[in-house]
Amino acid sequence: MDKFMEAALAEAKRSMETGGIPIGSVIVHDEKIIGRGHNQRVQKGSSVLHGEMDALENAGRQPASVYKNSVLYTTLSPCPMCTGAILLYGIPEVVIGENQTFMGEEELLKSRGVKVTVLQAEPCTALMKRFIEQSPQLWNEDIGCE
Amino acid sequence: MDKFMEAALAEAKRSMETGGIPIGSVIVHDEKIIGRGHNQRVQKGSSVLHGEMDALENAGRQPASVYKNSVLYTTLSPCPMCTGAILLYGIPEVVIGENQTFMGEEELLKSRGVKVTVLQAEPCTALMKRFIEQSPQLWNEDIGCE
Repeated sequence: MDKFMEAALAEAKRSMETGGIPIGSVIVHDEKIIGRGHNQRVQKGSSVLHGEMDALENAGRQPASVYKNSVLYTTLSPCPMCTGAILLYGIPEVVIGENQTFMGEEELLKSRGVKVTVLQAEPCTALMKRFIEQSPQLWNEDIGCE
Repeated sequence: MDKFMEAALAEAKRSMETGGIPIGSVIVHDEKIIGRGHNQRVQKGSSVLHGEMDALENAGRQPASVYKNSVLYTTLSPCPMCTGAILLYGIPEVVIGENQTFMGEEELLKSRGVKVTVLQAEPCTALMKRFIEQSPQLWNEDIGCE
C-alpha cells in the first residue's frame, strides 16, 4: 500500500479506536496531504462528515486550481454524497482502498471522467469487515439503510 | 410560495445578512421541519456545508425511515454534492426554489427516482442574482469554479 493510503488507513483506525466508523481519507496536492479526516457519525453526531467529507472540510476552503490537481484517497468506495463532493470540486483522481464490503458510485465517477483506482487492500477490507460484524446497525445507518 | 420554501428562503436571507452565501434549505418530515440550515462557507469556513448539507447536519442522525418519508426544500437547484447526499439517504422528493442562476443535478435525481419540483420563485432568483453580482468570486469558489 502506498504512503497516502497508509495515511487514510491510519485515520480509519483512529476512528475505530474512538468508537467510530473506520473509514478514513486524505486529499493529496503536489505530493502533500492538504486534508485528512475520518467518519464523524459517532464522534460528532454528524450525518454529513463521512471520511472523505471530513478530509475535504479539514482541507479548508481551497481554490478550484488546487482541487483540480489533487488526488483523493479513501479506504472505502465512496458513497453517493462523497462522490458528489468529488464531482463538485472537480477532483480528477480517486484511489480507493477496497470496494468489497461496500460498492459506491465508482461508475458515476468514471462516467464523469474521474480516474478511479481500486487497490483491494486487505487491511482496509479486514478493518471494515470487523466493524460491520461488530456494529451492523451503525453501519446501516451510515449508508442510509437503517 | 409555500410555507416550507418560505422557511428555506428565510435561512438564505439570514446567511446573506451575516455575509454569507444566500442559499437555504429545510427538511420536512410529517409536515414538520426537522432540520434547517444555510450555506456556511463564509460563516464557518466550510467547504462541505452547503445549505442542504447544513440542514441535514442540523437534523441530526435520523433513521432511514425518516429520510425516506421526508421532503427536502432548497432555494437553489442542488449541486452534485447535495444531490449525492439526497441519494445516499433516499430522500424521495426535492422542492427547488429556482434553477435559473444555477442548474444542478436535477436529471441525476430524476434518473434515480426522486420527485423534483422547481417553483421558479422570483424571490429566490432575485436574492441569488444580487449575491452573484456582488460576490462573483465567492460564488465561483462555492461551485468549484474558482
